Amino acid sequence: MDSEKPSGAVNQQERPGFEQWVVGFVDGEGCFSISVVKNSGCRLGWQVQHEFSVTQASPSRTVLEGLVEFFGCGSIIENNRRDDHRHQLMRYAVKRRSDLICRIIPFFEEHPLRTTKRQDFESFRVVITMMQKGLHLTFEGMVKIAGITETMNRKQRSRFLESSEAIRQPSLVRR
Amino acid sequence: MDSEKPSGAVNQQERPGFEQWVVGFVDGEGCFSISVVKNSGCRLGWQVQHEFSVTQASPSRTVLEGLVEFFGCGSIIENNRRDDHRHQLMRYAVKRRSDLICRIIPFFEEHPLRTTKRQDFESFRVVITMMQKGLHLTFEGMVKIAGITETMNRKQRSRFLESSEAIRQPSLVRR
Repeated sequence: MDSEKPSGAVNQQERPGFEQWVVGFVDGEGCFSISVVKNSGCRLGWQVQHEFSVTQASPSRTVLEGLVEFFGCGSIIENNRRDDHRHQLMRYAVKRRSDLICRIIPFFEEHPLRTTKRQDFESFRVVITMMQKGLHLTFEGMVKIAGITETMNRKQRSRFLESSEAIRQPSLVRR
Repeated sequence: MDSEKPSGAVNQQERPGFEQWVVGFVDGEGCFSISVVKNSGCRLGWQVQHEFSVTQASPSRTVLEGLVEFFGCGSIIENNRRDDHRHQLMRYAVKRRSDLICRIIPFFEEHPLRTTKRQDFESFRVVITMMQKGLHLTFEGMVKIAGITETMNRKQRSRFLESSEAIRQPSLVRR
């Protein structure tokens, strides 16, 4: 893929500088999220979830539809929450790893974010790269990924690192 | 002023598309605010306050400093509130009417916002234009301005329109 022109961007080319508008909007409203969640169907009993998202209130839905068109991937999901104006919240969400690898990550490599959100993007990219190598299927890899998630966004403690499985492996999990 | 290049934008010209990044960032994080507040020093006992602002947590302060440089006006104010990450919040704020008229409004006329925030900008522009004509110094003008504020941002009821002064003038204030 040509990262200058994500698929579906034909109409966008008529809008000069649209790439930089997307960067500014994502600097404001975007979120690069990695979560390690319990899933008994996975080998380790834990699963890594990844999502790039941009949230808006429902009146700006057309802007999110513009992102679906621009990136040529992802979809719009209705959140249960409402905003201060009591509008339904919607988010543009890209979860599929191949879309993140082929479309989202190359775009933000080519057009860097300008706020501290760039650090979240860098962590997000590191985790996705580790997953491409299958490292999330090993306990050591999962510990590293969970450690990275603790530095991202709301900087919450990782439930995986606080789980009994992780605590039983003190040589791997240094807190 | 050339609205393509607000004062202080020399360095920014080396960053292609920076104008569109600003538009995207303001679509995400910007606020065009008009308030009608009690002020016994004013002829009507009420004052119209106007502010264009962009709020960020303290780690992204340099981005706000970039806006001061780009627009060549405004300043950075520390908010009392903290964000979810417990960082100090800061806002880039432009309050002076001449800066709004000469720098901020021409920029967003030339580079339109893409979200519904554009409607707030249009209302903001209408009020500032009314104030240039001195209409905020008349009771009728103040009623119109207060009515416009009720359609902006959080869509709160106007304290001016609910005041005893306004209620005593039912022919001017139709609710």
